[in-house]
Amino acid sequence: MTGTELASGRARIAEPGEGIGLDELALAARNHGMPLEALRYDVTPPGLHYVLTHYDIPAVDPAAWRLEITGAVRRPLRLDLDDLRDRPAVTSRVLLECAGNGRARYEPRPVSQPWLLEAVGTAEWTGTPLAPLLAEAGVSPEAVDVVFTGADHGVERGVEQDYARGLPLAEALRPETLLVWGMNGAPLPPQHGAPLRLVVPGWYGMAQVKWLTRIDVTDEPFTGFQNATAYRIKVDRDEDGEPVTRIRPRALLQPPGWPEFMTRERFLRAGDTVLTGRAWSGRAPVGQVEVSTDGGTTWTEAALDPGDPAHPFAWRSWSCGWTARPGRWELLARATDETGESQPVEQRWNRQGMENNLVQRVPVTVLG
Amino acid sequence: MTGTELASGRARIAEPGEGIGLDELALAARNHGMPLEALRYDVTPPGLHYVLTHYDIPAVDPAAWRLEITGAVRRPLRLDLDDLRDRPAVTSRVLLECAGNGRARYEPRPVSQPWLLEAVGTAEWTGTPLAPLLAEAGVSPEAVDVVFTGADHGVERGVEQDYARGLPLAEALRPETLLVWGMNGAPLPPQHGAPLRLVVPGWYGMAQVKWLTRIDVTDEPFTGFQNATAYRIKVDRDEDGEPVTRIRPRALLQPPGWPEFMTRERFLRAGDTVLTGRAWSGRAPVGQVEVSTDGGTTWTEAALDPGDPAHPFAWRSWSCGWTARPGRWELLARATDETGESQPVEQRWNRQGMENNLVQRVPVTVLG
Repeated sequence: MTGTELASGRARIAEPGEGIGLDELALAARNHGMPLEALRYDVTPPGLHYVLTHYDIPAVDPAAWRLEITGAVRRPLRLDLDDLRDRPAVTSRVLLECAGNGRARYEPRPVSQPWLLEAVGTAEWTGTPLAPLLAEAGVSPEAVDVVFTGADHGVERGVEQDYARGLPLAEALRPETLLVWGMNGAPLPPQHGAPLRLVVPGWYGMAQVKWLTRIDVTDEPFTGFQNATAYRIKVDRDEDGEPVTRIRPRALLQPPGWPEFMTRERFLRAGDTVLTGRAWSGRAPVGQVEVSTDGGTTWTEAALDPGDPAHPFAWRSWSCGWTARPGRWELLARATDETGESQPVEQRWNRQGMENNLVQRVPVTVLG
Repeated sequence: MTGTELASGRARIAEPGEGIGLDELALAARNHGMPLEALRYDVTPPGLHYVLTHYDIPAVDPAAWRLEITGAVRRPLRLDLDDLRDRPAVTSRVLLECAGNGRARYEPRPVSQPWLLEAVGTAEWTGTPLAPLLAEAGVSPEAVDVVFTGADHGVERGVEQDYARGLPLAEALRPETLLVWGMNGAPLPPQHGAPLRLVVPGWYGMAQVKWLTRIDVTDEPFTGFQNATAYRIKVDRDEDGEPVTRIRPRALLQPPGWPEFMTRERFLRAGDTVLTGRAWSGRAPVGQVEVSTDGGTTWTEAALDPGDPAHPFAWRSWSCGWTARPGRWELLARATDETGESQPVEQRWNRQGMENNLVQRVPVTVLG
């Protein structure tokens, strides 16, 4: 990235055929995805759940930590962890996905965190609903956005900042929106936002602010970097673009058989097998999952688990029988949600590499 | 990697200037390093500890799981988890590091898991010493190696295999060598080898076999893939090379200040600051850590924490004061162990990218 691009807030697009750079590798080595065999777990163990940290994981002393709720409210609040833990607690199973998942497969490739397909996970988040706290603070009738600021500090395209994201007030007031201190029955680990993070079910990861320190209610739309510059769907450099919001539908297949170490190519033995995976959408319940074993020429409807009605924002498992005959095959899975939105089979490119829910392809060699 | 190279068991070397490939990226996205700010923790939280899995993380049912101890022994043993947990338990704080740590900075770059510097972690491992179990089994006087086999299955350079490593008998009999079922006070997570793994303090990660299913005592040196082909120090293609064994000395500096998102370049404010980090060697206690703030022209001895005598195989923390003046500086840290071995400042290349403990360099910009 050149100095001019940094100062202009523009991300770089890789040249055709350009390999992954050391800058992208440094992000890939410190952030991490969920190895796809972990699709087998209903609830993703913490060290297998994807993590993206824009800057460094901050060191937050939970004893000294306070949360400010301020801005366009009648009674600003200042809370410690015990104040929050004394409130009604909820545990909710929620899928999270990075908006940049699939970015590394775009052609040309936007230069940023180079996710292939593994920036997902489903965890059990324990916390307290945000809406009653905002009601106590007394939100102004003019309020439009709620801005969540984390303790993580850095520079991005020339802008020094604490990570901060604005969320429309209506989303902040949803009963499912939680201030979270626990993950999978244990305290929140440092990399997932200890001591407190936001969880907004259905939205991509950029909204799930970690290491929360401030909640500001605003009577103007928030125009900070992460809303106005990053996380927008743009094709041309100079358009404003649409904001990234809720998770688009996706199905992932747990790659069957065993891998080659370096190529990750898959091998399995001939015979009857069951292909399994997970599917989700942040926009509506998943309506259908289809599987192809011939590269997308023909499709079969998979059996979709009804899911637990108590956890509508978790992923759902699906399965599909397959008689694997010797040879090379390409397996695909495609989700459609109840709005009728389906995953594309050809890329819909944008210059920051957001919302790429292109159908997954898993080549396999079946041995005789 | 070409078919010929696969069949010949040879790893590929990248062309000069060749970017990271999608194959290397797929490994970087599924395995993960420890973000260097996590050097602040004495004990690395599980999701921040490095993980390298050659194939897939296997699904092991702990109730059905058994460990076989067999081969050149008088009384083969077959044990379940309760048999092991009923034995005397030890908790030991041990640093682990991948032998390929630093590989991505070699020029030219061996094509494999592309670690920069973050393939490390220190955890508290709970388990039972292996030596008394081997004594119960009655090791043959002719025994030379002990072979540990995991449940992880895959193909590597044309060889289909369960991951298996031979360890010299004397190392298997060290009182510190443990069969481990717990990590940081909790059950071993799936990606760290549940339900049972080996921990051999002082050795690189390839010896720390996960998802253990068999322990075979052999009266001939083990010549399986991971000992005879992988994990060898070779410069020429056709030499046998020396085996990779114990961890070479290394110091890592916790990068001060805050990062730029994409470049990971560091910024901090001018003034008095304290540089901190960790140091270790698997060959002898660390004797000295030196720090340079001028790119290696001058060096200052850091204050080295004596460490806990109960945990000689953990990393040790160090610190060094620095008056940061405005400008651009390059920070280095260098460990020397009590054998007198020091980290190199110029690369010592080998074709699989093993044991690259080249001194870390951290460029920083100090703001006025």
